[in-house]
Amino acid sequence: MAACRELRKEHAKEFFESFDTVLFDCDGVIWDANDEIPGAKDTLRKIKEMGKRIIFITNNSTKSRTQYAKKFTELGFESVPKERIFCTSFAAAHYLKEKLKFQGKVYLIGEAGLEEELTEYGISYTGPGPDPVTGIQKEWLHIPLDPEVRAVVVSYDVHISYVKIFRAASYLSDPSVAFVGTEMDGRKHYPGTHVVKPGTGCIINAVKTAALREPLILGKPESYLFECIQQSIKEVDQSRTLMVGDNLHTDIPFGRNCGLKTLLVLTGISTLEEARHFQASNSIHDQKKVPNFYLPSIKELGELIDKVQ
Amino acid sequence: MAACRELRKEHAKEFFESFDTVLFDCDGVIWDANDEIPGAKDTLRKIKEMGKRIIFITNNSTKSRTQYAKKFTELGFESVPKERIFCTSFAAAHYLKEKLKFQGKVYLIGEAGLEEELTEYGISYTGPGPDPVTGIQKEWLHIPLDPEVRAVVVSYDVHISYVKIFRAASYLSDPSVAFVGTEMDGRKHYPGTHVVKPGTGCIINAVKTAALREPLILGKPESYLFECIQQSIKEVDQSRTLMVGDNLHTDIPFGRNCGLKTLLVLTGISTLEEARHFQASNSIHDQKKVPNFYLPSIKELGELIDKVQ
Repeated sequence: MAACRELRKEHAKEFFESFDTVLFDCDGVIWDANDEIPGAKDTLRKIKEMGKRIIFITNNSTKSRTQYAKKFTELGFESVPKERIFCTSFAAAHYLKEKLKFQGKVYLIGEAGLEEELTEYGISYTGPGPDPVTGIQKEWLHIPLDPEVRAVVVSYDVHISYVKIFRAASYLSDPSVAFVGTEMDGRKHYPGTHVVKPGTGCIINAVKTAALREPLILGKPESYLFECIQQSIKEVDQSRTLMVGDNLHTDIPFGRNCGLKTLLVLTGISTLEEARHFQASNSIHDQKKVPNFYLPSIKELGELIDKVQ
Repeated sequence: MAACRELRKEHAKEFFESFDTVLFDCDGVIWDANDEIPGAKDTLRKIKEMGKRIIFITNNSTKSRTQYAKKFTELGFESVPKERIFCTSFAAAHYLKEKLKFQGKVYLIGEAGLEEELTEYGISYTGPGPDPVTGIQKEWLHIPLDPEVRAVVVSYDVHISYVKIFRAASYLSDPSVAFVGTEMDGRKHYPGTHVVKPGTGCIINAVKTAALREPLILGKPESYLFECIQQSIKEVDQSRTLMVGDNLHTDIPFGRNCGLKTLLVLTGISTLEEARHFQASNSIHDQKKVPNFYLPSIKELGELIDKVQ
């Protein structure tokens, strides 16, 4: 059972000796949209100087690995090679090519990040961009469906429409067509506002309700991103890896599912109260959401490094 | 436990003596889109001549009661007073006015039928029609939200969009704003085609995933439509009422939930194989989907009337 202890000076030496690799979630951990979370750059630099391997892992599919690498530089972080960035757009292309040995075309409900990753893997696709309803009901029977489509990939897409759900569900009525979803997050992290920004989970739930099928989900808390990491960077040992995240529903159970140590930071979606609630629960499902440690933010992680050295 | 027996001549006399009121589902029972299901007009006439009360009950929310009454006439059915038609568009307006004593404005994800019913009940609303995404992400924070909105009603809407889900979930972040869904059907009945036409369930699931709230659902298999019927037509006795439907997931469990007799017809969504599958299951949930009787179609129901008279 995980303890959900505040990470303090007295645990710090043992803690930092317990891992060689750190997986950092991005939104709500190292940045908020386009603003650094205070202390992130410093802490990342110190961890690197300790000789730890840093990997970034995000459920966000709107950017490709290359676009994320660019974002690090633009926000003034030390440059990060794209091979150290694992986002669900990459995971989708990786899954199709490496696991499914995919041939054929993808029907994509998704944005530029996924387009780039599919293109990089040489996978052709159709679907992105606006696709609004036009004409009358009877004409929908004649909406053209592409016979080459052999997989439906559903992700975040601000152009989600009835016609897109219609097309996706129609392709999926052939059970041999693969059904892949990037992640099930119900909301996008959108700090400091009362509005709710729907996440990919909304779109996937809409498609699967019509399709009467369950997609394979690649993002956290599912373990596929860690499988990608271990395939790409051979020496990553799960027993010596730390997952740092802000989300008790994705990051922490992902860490637990993959046998990693887990650290919650309170600069994003989840609160300490929620963690305590899960800790008090008898459900195994809830217990998976309890981190080993928590800290107010990534800044305090860097401060602890100073104290052990 | 329901028997799922074929309704034959030998049961017919007892069967017809067991009810005074018949609730007919519409799509897949009496019509397919705009075509009469063969024998429907004849059978309805014969049942009326037997002195039974006929009521139409549909999860479809795209038309108002008045529009349905018009459709009966246009398709050459005997005219049906709108007071004998219970659709989920009506149920939504009824629920807001009669149950919630609703004051304020509705944010409506829905079409003309709902607009008409809300207007008839004097409830103001905002929302229908296209509402596509425009501009860049940062501007969404400034999408205007109407402070008078005190309920979100979600139904079938071919103009469903990311912005609509965004607005609905943002209104629902205030827990005092009511959340009503018309019905959870995942697909629209669309006979004779390989395409899949998404139903209201897709749209409601998208909204509730972002809102992190459960809506009150009015349509079958929930019992609210029967509550409406009993409030509107005082003498309807559940123990002497028959539900005729084509859908094992909505019509039959609705009948069972309300204590009605149930008859499945095989001209719509569900098959006899599915009914047998549920019959063989030990789950209480599945057992609720087993009808008392089945017939190939509404035509055979009329033919049995001839045989008992």
